[in-house]
Amino acid sequence: MKMRQIILLTLLILANMSFSQTVNTDISETIIALEKRALEKWNQGDPSGYLDLSAEDATYFDPSLERRLNGLDSLKKYYEPIKGQINVSKYEMLNPKVTAVNNMAVLTFTLHSYKAYNISKWSCTEVYRLEPNGQWKIVHTHWSSFMKQ
Amino acid sequence: MKMRQIILLTLLILANMSFSQTVNTDISETIIALEKRALEKWNQGDPSGYLDLSAEDATYFDPSLERRLNGLDSLKKYYEPIKGQINVSKYEMLNPKVTAVNNMAVLTFTLHSYKAYNISKWSCTEVYRLEPNGQWKIVHTHWSSFMKQ
Repeated sequence: MKMRQIILLTLLILANMSFSQTVNTDISETIIALEKRALEKWNQGDPSGYLDLSAEDATYFDPSLERRLNGLDSLKKYYEPIKGQINVSKYEMLNPKVTAVNNMAVLTFTLHSYKAYNISKWSCTEVYRLEPNGQWKIVHTHWSSFMKQ
Repeated sequence: MKMRQIILLTLLILANMSFSQTVNTDISETIIALEKRALEKWNQGDPSGYLDLSAEDATYFDPSLERRLNGLDSLKKYYEPIKGQINVSKYEMLNPKVTAVNNMAVLTFTLHSYKAYNISKWSCTEVYRLEPNGQWKIVHTHWSSFMKQ
């Protein structure tokens, strides 16, 4: 290998290391902001935020489903009857945490949703993938409810 | 940029593309095998398979937890009283699906666990990360139960 190639490779490796070190905070902030925007629409009965944010191959679990939903079209059909049915007056996204590599990240948080005098408690996992166009899209969603024992 | 550098960069990019195209089947098989090995130990009351497979920064949700567990040590403490308490006679991992990039992957499946005449139905999300030593480790687990409505 020629010296010029070695220098070029070294520079590429260094650039990549520096990217890995600085990128995680930015990814966390970006992803939490995307999730909050979609969630705030959802809380007003509008699932379009989550649908716009989900990839074509997105998959989905929640406690009312016996099997996984596969693909954005299935998710669209599933959300259709829910449109306008949700009215959350207040929400808290607790302890959001993003674990990321350069082009995939998992966001987890606890959600407290308030409707009148009721509070419902949810655990949420969202897996995001950085698409070739530079947009983060959800490739998998998992909602579950806290069940008192 | 010199011609030699252009050629080298092109080769690097091509090598990387080829890696992306061929790697996904292998990743799926590897990860499903890792998960099954840990699950089969679990079904005999031995959580060590999952503990060995989880990263130091692993996080965890299941329906009995009001908040996420953070870190392998928390998971170890949580599993400690469960040791020897589980005896699943038969399991089915239904529709396992892996969505992967080069160094992170999400495995999702439905689990049917049989104990005597009871069947319990679970949705499972496992996020794996490829560690610098070449091992895939779980960085996040989410279990939820199917609730009939």
